[in-house]
This record gives sequence, structure tokens and C-alpha cells, in this order.
Amino acid sequence: MELRNEIIKKQNKKSPLKKPYRNFPMVPKVVFGEGSFDQLGDILMLKRQSVDAPMIYLVDDVFKNSSLIDRIPLLFDDKIIFQCAEEEPKTEQVDALVSKIKEDFKELPSGVIGIGGGTMMDLAKAVAIMLKNKGTSAKYQGWDLVHKPAIYHVGIPTISGTGAEVSRTTVLMGPTKKLGINSDYTVFDQVVLDPDLLQGVPKEKWFFTGMDCFIHCIESLNGTYLNAFSQSYGEKALELCKEVFLGDLSKSDARAKLMMASWHGGMSIAYSQVGIAHALSYGLSYLLGIRHGLANCLVFQHLGDFYPEGVRLFNEILSKNQIELPQGICKDLTDEQFNTMIEVSLKMTPLWENALGKNWESHITPEIIRAIFNKI
Amino acid sequence: MELRNEIIKKQNKKSPLKKPYRNFPMVPKVVFGEGSFDQLGDILMLKRQSVDAPMIYLVDDVFKNSSLIDRIPLLFDDKIIFQCAEEEPKTEQVDALVSKIKEDFKELPSGVIGIGGGTMMDLAKAVAIMLKNKGTSAKYQGWDLVHKPAIYHVGIPTISGTGAEVSRTTVLMGPTKKLGINSDYTVFDQVVLDPDLLQGVPKEKWFFTGMDCFIHCIESLNGTYLNAFSQSYGEKALELCKEVFLGDLSKSDARAKLMMASWHGGMSIAYSQVGIAHALSYGLSYLLGIRHGLANCLVFQHLGDFYPEGVRLFNEILSKNQIELPQGICKDLTDEQFNTMIEVSLKMTPLWENALGKNWESHITPEIIRAIFNKI
Repeated sequence: MELRNEIIKKQNKKSPLKKPYRNFPMVPKVVFGEGSFDQLGDILMLKRQSVDAPMIYLVDDVFKNSSLIDRIPLLFDDKIIFQCAEEEPKTEQVDALVSKIKEDFKELPSGVIGIGGGTMMDLAKAVAIMLKNKGTSAKYQGWDLVHKPAIYHVGIPTISGTGAEVSRTTVLMGPTKKLGINSDYTVFDQVVLDPDLLQGVPKEKWFFTGMDCFIHCIESLNGTYLNAFSQSYGEKALELCKEVFLGDLSKSDARAKLMMASWHGGMSIAYSQVGIAHALSYGLSYLLGIRHGLANCLVFQHLGDFYPEGVRLFNEILSKNQIELPQGICKDLTDEQFNTMIEVSLKMTPLWENALGKNWESHITPEIIRAIFNKI
Repeated sequence: MELRNEIIKKQNKKSPLKKPYRNFPMVPKVVFGEGSFDQLGDILMLKRQSVDAPMIYLVDDVFKNSSLIDRIPLLFDDKIIFQCAEEEPKTEQVDALVSKIKEDFKELPSGVIGIGGGTMMDLAKAVAIMLKNKGTSAKYQGWDLVHKPAIYHVGIPTISGTGAEVSRTTVLMGPTKKLGINSDYTVFDQVVLDPDLLQGVPKEKWFFTGMDCFIHCIESLNGTYLNAFSQSYGEKALELCKEVFLGDLSKSDARAKLMMASWHGGMSIAYSQVGIAHALSYGLSYLLGIRHGLANCLVFQHLGDFYPEGVRLFNEILSKNQIELPQGICKDLTDEQFNTMIEVSLKMTPLWENALGKNWESHITPEIIRAIFNKI
């Protein structure tokens, strides 16, 4: 039984996109290629405002002492700030970074460059916005609340799957919610896609981040919002995920193709949305701080009623890649904790509506959600 | 025998892309959706410089007296200029348009909006560039010769396939050559993708323009320059072409999917190139003024030695869509005329190198090219 289809069939099959359609911002400059990281110096040179306006590099601290650091084109007062990416990025972390940068330099930076996975991408985007917008970043979590352009910011992914390099959101854990700063100004001004930077990503990180892409493709392609634009990107991303996780590619091809899967997967969200796995995984991450990619997988495995073909493929991928998901994550949680997760999840209206249509609320009860969390 | 493969095998298999890789400019804003044309007024409102700086609409003259004209959001001194798209766009046409616009208005326009097929896209891009750059447009045919940003320009395709809506070139017929103005400033600032605008395109135009996309995908995917970025876009575009021309889609799905095929096909050229069909078709169009889409088809049908699988598919598409290509086009040409076509074609070095590798010149003789033209 495909529960999702049953629910959608009872209503209008599609929730047509509301007009006006979003005028979607794309990353205006992208360079792709093995070794393209070394072009960063030339790219940034054109964007330097003055010798007192540094480039700020936000770098995943796994790269401390790695040779990548020597390749960062430091000039004048440029600064590398290492950040731990073990936890989801937080609004208070963004605010602290912005205060520190404003304190340390007399001029605003010429640019912010994020080097790392989704967390670093999101931090760089949020810091670039908040250097130009007042107050706490939590104030801007939501849709189109940012009114001043961010400073120039560059995304350089070293792990692929989230699509953060191409999206118009930066998802932050706030004091009251996990939610993105969604705005046209969030989008990177420049992305450097160098597949060589994916060398050395630990297997589980590679897998769970890649599965973020896989899962959001399944959700987007099975969503009621879908149109031909998002469908074409989503289909290509899904196909590339299959090549990477079920095919027999060389390691270098796998890196390049996962990088493109993430790119297209991110673009596919332009006129689409993620769905049930993301709604529930937001709850799980909010309460337990579980990393986004893993949280998605923990939820998705139990969504066979909603995405039967997707879950079948997912199980095939798990087995081919010899990944075992942790179990019993929710077994000792209190009712209060379950309720927090359920509450956070139910707030994700557009995700539910995309998955199940406009009348989703008459089909999804706290009990149904609790039953899924119980299995995790 | 696959001649192309034989030739490539004898040398290095790939012509790896030269570093630095191109820092590719993408269209920074795109809106997609049926009826999205009606958002144009709001989009342009934000870009108006003053009441004396009009929006200039370059519109294919097939829309004269059509209801589309009433939907153009005219304000203040805005002007619609109809252009005939029966012939390939010319440098002198661009120069004349620019002179006229400069004469008619005391301020530079706020923007140039191209509405039509590839010809209108190319005219709008070229006019937007030349309103800010001195001299004749012929001076800028080539690679990265434009040094001043174009004025704001918008592409609104009403025929799909060329990829002109997303490319960084505007191909013009000049006094001495057919060649693009390739530059970062060529790229549109905004594209409006409204599949409804494809309604009413005559069957042959629909077909030949769509085949432009199909053929450049075959050339790009079989090229020696290809990388994972261009491959992923090219594969998706090709797949969409197959759905449109060999599948059984509804008319509205076919319109939306061909629009996306053209978009992805154009993107696929970012790190790739077209190949032999385009090299020869440039010669054919230069001498005889044959429209680009048709010229490509006329050449491509005879390239079975170079692209065997592509030509097989092409024949299947011709038959399914009940298209018969004109014959005997070259039968009365003089030797001098053949030589002109051959000369123009042989000048397209990057196209030949992409198709056949670095040593292409030792394999392609004027005789081989003449033999192909003879069949057309």
C-alpha cells in the first residue's frame, strides 16, 4: 500500500505552484574541475575592496594541519577561522563569528569563503548575510526576511550531498527552531567545485551526506509541487546518486559525479520541496543534535508506506555500501521529548503539503509521527 | 566503422580541459512556469533607471498583431522593435539597432528584452553589449573581447533548442565570418521560461530548433573535452530530447520538457564544445544563409562515420516525426563556393579539436569535407 498516493488521490492530485512563481537566483559564477581550488587566488583578487578589508576563510577544522591550508591564498589581513562541523550550525555560533570579525577588523571583510561540508557552507552564507544585517541571525530564520545584500561569499564544498552550495537557504539551529534563512541574498556569489577536495572524506560522512541528496531527490520527485524545471534537475541528481552508490565507478569519477548530484539536487529544490523525511529529521536533529544526513537516513528507512520505491532503493544502497544504521536512538526518550520532536516536525508545513497535498493535516496525526520515531 | 573513435584512439584519448578552467557565468535569475510571462512587469520594475531610460523589447515579428504584444508591460517611453527572424542575426543588424536606439532616446535604455527564438536571444544579447561598447559588433566576435558590462538584458524564449537563453555567446553573421561574441557579459541577467509561449510554433521550426539541442548534445557528449559537469547537463538534455521527439508526451509536457532540454543543453557547453556538425553547418549557413537548426540537420545526417549512434537515433526521430529533409542544396554550387564553406568550417578549431582530438588536422582534409557537402 502506498499511503502517500492514497492520501493524494483523495484530494486534488497536485498542489500547483502558487503564482507568482519564484524568480529563482542561481549562483552567478561557478568553476568546475580537478585542481580548480588553485584558481581561488585569482578569483578573489578581483573582489578585494582594500588592504584593510580581508578575506575571511571559514574552514572545517578537520583540515587543520592539512596541506589544503597551505593552498589557501592568504594576502594582507586575510584570516582563516577554523570551525568544528561535528554539530549542526547554530544561530549563536553565527552571531559570535560576526561579532568577532567586526571586532578584529576596522573594515568589513571583502568576502567570506566557506570551505567544508554543508555546515561550513551554511555558516559562510549566514555570516556573509549577518555582516550586513542587524540583530541576531535568529531574527532572519524564515522566508525572505533579509533586506540587505550579503557581502561577497564563496562556497567551496569538500563533502557533497546537501546541495547547500547552490541553494537559497542556510539552515540554522536557533533558540526556538531549526529553520533556514531563505533569501535571494543567501545564494553564493561564486562556487568552486573541485572534485579532488572530496579525497579523504571518511566513508560514513561520504555516505550520509550523499544520502541527503538521494533522499531529497526522492522527496522532491514524489512531491505534489513538482514542475518540469525541478523534475529535470531531480531526475539527473537521482541518476547520478544511483551511479555513485550502486554502480562501479572509479573513485575519481565517483567524486566528480557525487559533486554534480549534489549540485543538481540542490537546484531541483528551486520549484519543489523536500518532504516527510526532512520534516521528521528536523525534529530529530533539533532534539538530539543528530547530523542532518544521518537523521534523514534514520527516518527514511521507516517511510516505506510513503515512498515505497525510494525506500526499496535505499535498502539496496545500504546493503551494497555495507552501512548499518544505528538503532535504539529514541528508546529512552520521555513523552515530553517525543512531543518536542513531533511539534518541530509538524511545523514544517510546506514539506508536508509538498508530500501529501493541501489536506495533509487531516491525515497526519501526532500518533503517526510518534510511531515512526518509536522505531528509530 | 566509427571513424571518430579510430582517430581519437590513435592519439591521446582525451584533450583534457586546459587550466585554468573557465569560471563559468550562470544566468543569475530565472523564473519558470506556465504563465510566468505575466511576471515580467514586476521583474522589470526593479530595474528601471529613470522615466527617460526605457525598456527596449526586441520581438520576433511573427508576434505582430498577436495577443502576446498586449501582455508586454509597456511603461513611459518603452519601445517594441519587431525584427524578422527568418535570417541569421547579423553584425550590421546589431549595429543599426544600436544606432537607432541611441538616436531615439536621450538616455541609455534601462534594459533590453529579447522575445523569440535563438535569433532574438542573440540580437538582444548583442544589442545590450553594444549599447555599452564602442565600434562595430564585428570587432567583438571571438573570445573575451568585451571589456565593459552590457546593460541589463532579459531573455524570453518562444522557441526552444538553441540554448541561447543560457549561453555566454551570441552568434552573429559578420562581414568575414559567422562567429559568436563569447564573453561573461553576454549572459542574460534574467531569463523567463514560460512553456506556454511555445504554443503555436510551426512544426518544422519546433523540430529543427529542437534538433539543434539534440545535435549539440551528441557532439558534446562524444567530445574529447567533456568533464562531469558538462556530461551531467548533456545527458539530461539528451534524455529530454528523446522524451520529446520519441516519446508520447502531452503537448504541454512536451513544451515544458523541450524548454528544459534547451536549458540543460546550453549549460552542457560550459566545459565542452560542439563538434563536426556545427563546424560544417557554420560553413553552410555562412554561404547560403540556411537557418542554424536546419543546417545542422542537413550536415548531421551524413556524419554516421563520426557519430554512428547519434545518427541512428536522428534517423529514428526523423521518421517518427515525419520530417523529410530538403535535398540537392549543394548540387549547383561552384568550386569557389565549396571552398568558401570549407574554409569557414576549417576555421572552427575548437570544434574540430573537441570532436577529434589535438591532431584533428592530420585527419580532416578539404576533400573529406567537400565529400560531405556534396551529399547535401
